[in-house]
Amino acid sequence: MLPDELVRQNDCRILYYILDGLGGTTDPDRRQTELEAARTPVLDELAARSETGLTVPVLPGIAPGSGPGHFALFGYDPVENNIGRGVLEAAGIGFGLAEGDLAIRVNFATVDAEGRIIDRRAGRIRTEECGRLCAIMRDAIGLEGVEVFVEPVKEHRAAVVLRPDGIELADGIADTDPQATGVPPLPVEALRPEAEPASELLRTLLEQVTGPLAAAGEPAYYPLLRGIARFRRYPSLHERFGLRAVAVATYPMYKGISRLLGMDVHEGATDLAGQLEAVTGYWSSHDFFFVHFKATDARGEDGDFDAKVAAIEEADAALPGFLELGPGVVVVTGDHSTPALVRAHSGHSVPVLLHSPVARWSGVETFSEIACAHRGTLGTFPMMHLMGLALGHADRLQKFGA
Amino acid sequence: MLPDELVRQNDCRILYYILDGLGGTTDPDRRQTELEAARTPVLDELAARSETGLTVPVLPGIAPGSGPGHFALFGYDPVENNIGRGVLEAAGIGFGLAEGDLAIRVNFATVDAEGRIIDRRAGRIRTEECGRLCAIMRDAIGLEGVEVFVEPVKEHRAAVVLRPDGIELADGIADTDPQATGVPPLPVEALRPEAEPASELLRTLLEQVTGPLAAAGEPAYYPLLRGIARFRRYPSLHERFGLRAVAVATYPMYKGISRLLGMDVHEGATDLAGQLEAVTGYWSSHDFFFVHFKATDARGEDGDFDAKVAAIEEADAALPGFLELGPGVVVVTGDHSTPALVRAHSGHSVPVLLHSPVARWSGVETFSEIACAHRGTLGTFPMMHLMGLALGHADRLQKFGA
Repeated sequence: MLPDELVRQNDCRILYYILDGLGGTTDPDRRQTELEAARTPVLDELAARSETGLTVPVLPGIAPGSGPGHFALFGYDPVENNIGRGVLEAAGIGFGLAEGDLAIRVNFATVDAEGRIIDRRAGRIRTEECGRLCAIMRDAIGLEGVEVFVEPVKEHRAAVVLRPDGIELADGIADTDPQATGVPPLPVEALRPEAEPASELLRTLLEQVTGPLAAAGEPAYYPLLRGIARFRRYPSLHERFGLRAVAVATYPMYKGISRLLGMDVHEGATDLAGQLEAVTGYWSSHDFFFVHFKATDARGEDGDFDAKVAAIEEADAALPGFLELGPGVVVVTGDHSTPALVRAHSGHSVPVLLHSPVARWSGVETFSEIACAHRGTLGTFPMMHLMGLALGHADRLQKFGA
Repeated sequence: MLPDELVRQNDCRILYYILDGLGGTTDPDRRQTELEAARTPVLDELAARSETGLTVPVLPGIAPGSGPGHFALFGYDPVENNIGRGVLEAAGIGFGLAEGDLAIRVNFATVDAEGRIIDRRAGRIRTEECGRLCAIMRDAIGLEGVEVFVEPVKEHRAAVVLRPDGIELADGIADTDPQATGVPPLPVEALRPEAEPASELLRTLLEQVTGPLAAAGEPAYYPLLRGIARFRRYPSLHERFGLRAVAVATYPMYKGISRLLGMDVHEGATDLAGQLEAVTGYWSSHDFFFVHFKATDARGEDGDFDAKVAAIEEADAALPGFLELGPGVVVVTGDHSTPALVRAHSGHSVPVLLHSPVARWSGVETFSEIACAHRGTLGTFPMMHLMGLALGHADRLQKFGA
């Protein structure tokens, strides 16, 4: 598979500066996108001397989740490697998944005496309360042929992992969350025949925990099962590209994705200043640095145009510290677009900037979606090809063919 | 397969004016690419009235060899049809390869008394000396089940072809060239089980020739085996597109690639003036003209920005003679980029100009990578789709579907 088979080693360091949900869209009143409105002197100056373009995370018009977006950024086909929400949740808390595990995201809800859902998030209970409910589940569960792990994540969210011992657990099981209140949870339903054994186990599990969880609160707690997914190991960035990669993110989910791809994961950084300090510490031991900035996505989801502009400006102001470390290749982009106008991940393409000593100078005067479209040197291309571009600019790929 | 199944015949002539390694990148001091720096009045005037864009030979960031680059130019998937170096070398000297032949590039090296390599190119011996060594090999070789051909190429380079008689020879055999001096050649090693029979034959071949070659010089000669590849016949440009194609190149390798794709190959032209004379002679008998200009690539590989600029200007000055013949479609592009800054084939996209009576006028003021990115009408697209575009503009494709 290309470009994997062409990889060669050198000392060139690659910085991935990922502003989550970076791409926006034109606000009809302001006649600008968030990136156009933001004052970004560092990005603008760098973009003029960089290759620029737009990437399509999955397919035009399709909004990716965080999993597919990041998989594409790192050169993994986001459709072939579509990771289940359960796996993402378990990986996010650092749970060591094994090949064949069935991972499930649990939302603790509250239900009335007739078993109808009152609150799908149980009033967003504190994480400590979530831990208590997980312990109750652990005590109640006893299933033949599988080991069961129940771990709190955050607030009402937990992760359940079924580890098979001598049996096979296939996924393809519908969520039991009806996405509504006033109705009972959905039954566990296999969407394909191979998933029937695992479905039967989950039905038994729910029978075992329903009584103890109902007794643990008033109103009664009930676990909604979501994103039921079988884990399979992914080839790491080191195996595929020979990169010694480290992720410096502040949110668990992005650490989890990084762990799934074999990156070392830094713990403890809470903002870009801390992330810079961390990257500086890894500079001599690693050669691929994934810096993840969350606020651009969060403010986009809030629908707050001005706050997203401010987040972009914060990331711009922090960039020089990373550039001073002297990376050979710098990539600034997002894993998808989150326009404030959309208030959610969207299917818009994502602006990208790639700087290296052999970059063509795109000459864009400002780094934005529109400038990248009008004057980009890279055109619009599948996001999963970005890693090949970065490796090529790092001189880390041999020539293909004679 | 599209566009093959849509092909229809007419009299429209297509000129492929290929400047090898045409694409460059921005020199940070000059703030220009080679194409931007070059004075190219002919190309500039033509580009304004032509479709322009950028092509990706293989995948973003991947630098292609000459084989994949040209295969893509002619509409052949460069990954599916990745041609081995041995096949390219044998084809380059006009050797008539047959289906199933195993072709090998040989570099004559010199070795010391302990068999360690002194010079991997034997001091770049003259081609006549290479011919003498080939004759010595021919006399020494006797292998069961295969006919063996040994032909000089140039200086220290030769081609060996094993033609099986009733047996199957699979490739997947490692080079024996250790790419270093002071160490012995590598043993012949099969990279997959099917390649073991051919590997065993090559080990015997090396045993047979080692003594005679050692006796032929002081220090001893030794043949390093590289690019061991099984030949398979490719459908020709005539079979696929109904084109009566002729290649007018000055370098053996490009003639070889053209032969592999069933083109007629002109012999004897040594410069663009001679190539124009040749094309003029073929004008009434052919309808696809592949003119190959090497200097742009060679000067890029030298890392000589100014010399590459001069090569581009030479090609620009020679273009009017070809245009005066009245081709219906003119394509000017390269098989890959060779920026002087990189001193090698690179993974940058390649500027392309396509002129026809129905071309959209891109209005670019100068033909360059940056102008094609900023104002191109074709965008950035896989190089293997260029042939379909040329055929479409030549009105040589029927409508697809009802």
